[in-house]
Amino acid sequence: MTHEIAVIPGDGIGQEVTPAAVDVLEAVDADFDFVEGDAGDAVKAETGEALPAETRDLAADADATLFGAAGETAADVILPLRDVVGSFANVRPARSYPGLDAVQPDTDIVFIRENTEGVYSGIEAEIDDGVRTLTRVITEDASREIAEFGFKYAKQNGFDDVTVAHKANVMRETDGLFLETAQEVGDSFDIDYDTALMDALAMHLVMHPGEYGVVICPNLAGDMLSDLAAGLVGGLGLLPSANVGEDNALFEPVHGSAPDIAGQGIANPSAMILSAAMLLDHLDYGDEATAVREAVEGVLADGPRTPDLGGDAGTDDVTAAVVDRL
Amino acid sequence: MTHEIAVIPGDGIGQEVTPAAVDVLEAVDADFDFVEGDAGDAVKAETGEALPAETRDLAADADATLFGAAGETAADVILPLRDVVGSFANVRPARSYPGLDAVQPDTDIVFIRENTEGVYSGIEAEIDDGVRTLTRVITEDASREIAEFGFKYAKQNGFDDVTVAHKANVMRETDGLFLETAQEVGDSFDIDYDTALMDALAMHLVMHPGEYGVVICPNLAGDMLSDLAAGLVGGLGLLPSANVGEDNALFEPVHGSAPDIAGQGIANPSAMILSAAMLLDHLDYGDEATAVREAVEGVLADGPRTPDLGGDAGTDDVTAAVVDRL
Ligand SMILES: CC(C)[C@H](C(=O)O)[C@@H](O)C(=O)O
Ligand SMILES: CC(C)[C@H](C(=O)O)[C@@H](O)C(=O)O
Repeated sequence: MTHEIAVIPGDGIGQEVTPAAVDVLEAVDADFDFVEGDAGDAVKAETGEALPAETRDLAADADATLFGAAGETAADVILPLRDVVGSFANVRPARSYPGLDAVQPDTDIVFIRENTEGVYSGIEAEIDDGVRTLTRVITEDASREIAEFGFKYAKQNGFDDVTVAHKANVMRETDGLFLETAQEVGDSFDIDYDTALMDALAMHLVMHPGEYGVVICPNLAGDMLSDLAAGLVGGLGLLPSANVGEDNALFEPVHGSAPDIAGQGIANPSAMILSAAMLLDHLDYGDEATAVREAVEGVLADGPRTPDLGGDAGTDDVTAAVVDRL
Repeated sequence: MTHEIAVIPGDGIGQEVTPAAVDVLEAVDADFDFVEGDAGDAVKAETGEALPAETRDLAADADATLFGAAGETAADVILPLRDVVGSFANVRPARSYPGLDAVQPDTDIVFIRENTEGVYSGIEAEIDDGVRTLTRVITEDASREIAEFGFKYAKQNGFDDVTVAHKANVMRETDGLFLETAQEVGDSFDIDYDTALMDALAMHLVMHPGEYGVVICPNLAGDMLSDLAAGLVGGLGLLPSANVGEDNALFEPVHGSAPDIAGQGIANPSAMILSAAMLLDHLDYGDEATAVREAVEGVLADGPRTPDLGGDAGTDDVTAAVVDRL
């Protein structure tokens, strides 16, 4: 069965790493039709819209979407796209790789970030001169959905501990609901889990990342803690992510458009290729996903490496080396 | 002139490290009257109130307050106390010390955390079954006050760079106001400053803490990022903090009541003693503050050390060693 894959390179290094991921997907034994769409600063400059309706429709109709990065307009592109694919879970694995410099080489954590609410509600108001509010929304449904997803993910992927992040001592009603619901779900699974205040968790993740497996988080906490973990393993160039919905999904590197190095052909394509591996897993090409991951790991270990990892190879060299290993 | 210092040890190791800080304050050449008050889990169990009115009044009337820690009731104690002293700024220095194990030994950052609003508004509601909201409040006044405090702090303490943390790409109105206001203030100071998305900042702080000086943050971001930095320098046992208002202030370690080690006499008093040094600075005992800081640094370098730093000394040994060096 042919799967239709929407491909949205976006801006900056998105234009360089997205084709790399497509090259890899074309090299594995899978039946994909790629259809490309525009989004980001460049298309906004031309058309006035960062996310044109056609691109939106493309993602809505595809079996899955690969998204590169966007510049200034990142939020205008990625937040609606996450919504278009109906994604409630943002899955962000952060792991260190042998042979690569890392602040904490013993890191292998998957952040399961609630992807629809919290302070991402978009509900803001100026209620008086110089007084503005944002409505942080937490629902039992979304909390249950992300917790169930997270605990199931841990089970299926062989993690034996789960941590639920929250700040229920301050956000008593909202994070209280998030926490309670996650605990209810956790109690129904046969797995060890802990709960942790998100501030204390930030400290513990820095000091003892090896003690963590799956971390289930409210939206913004997941955003910050997964970036923190990116710092532990050597930077955003290595972190893929999946935005998972009921029957659609979008895959993107955690990094942005990196205007400082865009156009030079030196962007690290690993995060994007690993995002493509997550896409393969999602569409039930498990063996191919594993092969891609092993190929990336091999290249990370033996080179070639892009400058962000201390090498002097280009995006194309790294991509060719990954394809070679498949 | 005699200053009245309210002393609120609280729960757990608060009972052990607070007397240590008082010992140090009694050893320097300053004229203090100490008056003690109760707060926390223990007094709540007895009286039903975590923060009795007398303790509240004590803090309100004193020239400054030393607070240890509270257990389960931490938020019920510390949030009202911060309010009682009218503190708008939470100052949290995080630095690594020579000779101590640290994830990042080159860290010397002061977080200036907005201390009154953001998601700490306390305004929450259940608007429907399973649907709860929290009102995140950002005002121009509080944003200006914290930014002015932060830039002035940087100037006065010899920092030559300031970073303003925000998430204005998502929280456009609220953090937009925080960011704009801080930029306006920053532009009026003769100092280099940058702005940073709080997620990207979490990553950069982990990888390159040496590039940061003063970091001005909204309330919860400051909570999380300063704990992150505690992880970089070796844990909460080293981080003091000041809650600064117009004409009152409260000083507390960033750590909590640590029930796991409470009652054993092995708690690290450094964070609490360094908080007392911040109190000395605040009351214009600058030389004494420097002397205390140098004494703590000397003891951290040469010992004795408590178990959290790999030693086997007790709280009293460390305190005596600090007093000895004064
Ligand atoms: C660009 C921004 C809206 C986005 C987010 O906050 O989710 C980004 O930081 C991310 O983590 O993908
Ligand atoms: C106990 C809690 C309310 C408090 C906070 O969130 O400010 C604590 O985490 C801190 O950082 O002092």
